[in-house]
Amino acid sequence: MSDKAVAVVGATGSVGRTMVSILEERDYPLGSLRLLASERSAGSVVETKWGSIEVEDLSTADPTGVDVALFSAGGERSRAHAGSFVAAGAVVIDNSSAFRMDANVPLVVVQVNDAAAEHHEGIIANPNCTTMTLMMAAGPLHRAAGLRSVVASSYQAVSGSGRQGVEELVRQADALRPGLETLIRGGWADPGSKLYPRPIGFNVVPFAGSEVEGGYTDEEMKLVNESRKILEIDDLLVEPTCVRVPVMVGHGVSTTLRFERPVDVEEAVEVLNDASGIEVWSDQVPTPLDSAGLDAVLVGRIRATLGEPGGINLWVVGDNLRKGAALNAVQIAELLV
Amino acid sequence: MSDKAVAVVGATGSVGRTMVSILEERDYPLGSLRLLASERSAGSVVETKWGSIEVEDLSTADPTGVDVALFSAGGERSRAHAGSFVAAGAVVIDNSSAFRMDANVPLVVVQVNDAAAEHHEGIIANPNCTTMTLMMAAGPLHRAAGLRSVVASSYQAVSGSGRQGVEELVRQADALRPGLETLIRGGWADPGSKLYPRPIGFNVVPFAGSEVEGGYTDEEMKLVNESRKILEIDDLLVEPTCVRVPVMVGHGVSTTLRFERPVDVEEAVEVLNDASGIEVWSDQVPTPLDSAGLDAVLVGRIRATLGEPGGINLWVVGDNLRKGAALNAVQIAELLV
Repeated sequence: MSDKAVAVVGATGSVGRTMVSILEERDYPLGSLRLLASERSAGSVVETKWGSIEVEDLSTADPTGVDVALFSAGGERSRAHAGSFVAAGAVVIDNSSAFRMDANVPLVVVQVNDAAAEHHEGIIANPNCTTMTLMMAAGPLHRAAGLRSVVASSYQAVSGSGRQGVEELVRQADALRPGLETLIRGGWADPGSKLYPRPIGFNVVPFAGSEVEGGYTDEEMKLVNESRKILEIDDLLVEPTCVRVPVMVGHGVSTTLRFERPVDVEEAVEVLNDASGIEVWSDQVPTPLDSAGLDAVLVGRIRATLGEPGGINLWVVGDNLRKGAALNAVQIAELLV
Repeated sequence: MSDKAVAVVGATGSVGRTMVSILEERDYPLGSLRLLASERSAGSVVETKWGSIEVEDLSTADPTGVDVALFSAGGERSRAHAGSFVAAGAVVIDNSSAFRMDANVPLVVVQVNDAAAEHHEGIIANPNCTTMTLMMAAGPLHRAAGLRSVVASSYQAVSGSGRQGVEELVRQADALRPGLETLIRGGWADPGSKLYPRPIGFNVVPFAGSEVEGGYTDEEMKLVNESRKILEIDDLLVEPTCVRVPVMVGHGVSTTLRFERPVDVEEAVEVLNDASGIEVWSDQVPTPLDSAGLDAVLVGRIRATLGEPGGINLWVVGDNLRKGAALNAVQIAELLV
């Protein structure tokens, strides 16, 4: 198997940087690495295991010779540039939402639906970070017992919005900190919000993305539509609520899962213990901080449903930049080798 | 109607202080005010609208002459001392969980089940703060269409754990702040946790209270059992998950509600707009920070269920120290006048 010429597109963003780190950590047969980004970041130099690499301007770069292009530069740039990479012979693994729901584009959570990657026409899509985290727990349980419905409330980290999200949290947390101890009596100076509809510093914002239909956000509809596609359950019932929390990295999901047949806690724990890419934490509660920097997605609070019996309530949390984005993209590249 | 002799027990805690503030703000016919607390806080002086009041030692105080005692000093102190206040002729309004599930103790969310307060034997219980917040939205919808099931994931502020929770968040947020921007690459110095099982600073902890049965926490079982008692639905189906978030004040709940008959968004908005004590926010997303210091509980993100139609997904958030605790206790006292 010959080594691959890899390009990371959007290499200076949070996910792009993580893609480079993950390529450095793993045994992917990388022959050469090119880094591309928007004109603004072009010319900067990134230190890598393979030496210093100058970032190229995506808009003028020649894709010739690239075998695998990992895109994480937003949907608009994916739509504008993925085609030329495919035409030049590359397989594009795209982290944006641009192509995820296209019928001829596989949507792959590695360790959940790897087989879907076998049939592609040059583009393979990487799912939404919250969906990915949920699928790591829901996928194995679906294979065991047939998933029928999902109620999911997310606890999403600001790095899911890229570096701007990180900056907004830091800025607002610093602005609110002096008045923090008196805030419980009401009254706080609005730190001003650029990215989110309300402040995220020492707050939670039950609205992620933008509204698309019936009051649901695009982030919530991704959870519905991408879950259905990944698990190949056209009529999967999903009730999604996506909430941003003042956490740097690590998306959590509290979920109620119901199946075609009853599943008890013992079976759920066994199924999840046997699954790849996840760790069941029984003695300690897994939190976003615990997940930061880990490849594994963490599952905890596995409980039998209290209302209608036979279902499972659980908590799942994973590093949104790693398994939720960059790691899964590199794992897709590994499937192609 | 003669003025009432009021005692606040646990007067130096977060909820007790808020009780005093709320008595100052409202038109309650207060004739005299006594403040009581543990030996440790006895002797301190609290400035109030009615002058400086020295805090008395609960363990040695004489309850004679008290008409209404607002207790918020923990379940153990309620169990030890409520009886002597009742024997002395007082009505005890208890914010602890000590008596909530007793058959002869009404559990009252004012504006939801006021009538329950009419028949008591000296003690009326104030519900759990998360349950209270949820009930403010679920109660009116139940009256309209018959509530059948609730799936609820909470986003609970640290002040729900009292002053210790506030101190833990402040201390950990300060400890994590210097490394915050590099935390997205993993690696963080554990700030040490005293109160919660994992750090709450820039993190969320999907575990509130202590484990009681089947992996559920007492906080989660309160949501189940208290909701059933307040709404008088013995077989209400509840799937509860309680999560602590790094927020000072304001408990949020993301919930999926299903009813005996279909409810659409238009009806839900109309019912909630007509209800007392809540505000429906349609143009802006209500957050914990927005709720801080407000009497009203805020409802937003009202959406038709996407899976099985006929239900409602919504977000509700309220100041856990006010409507979630102190305000409701004072409102119960007002019902008794």
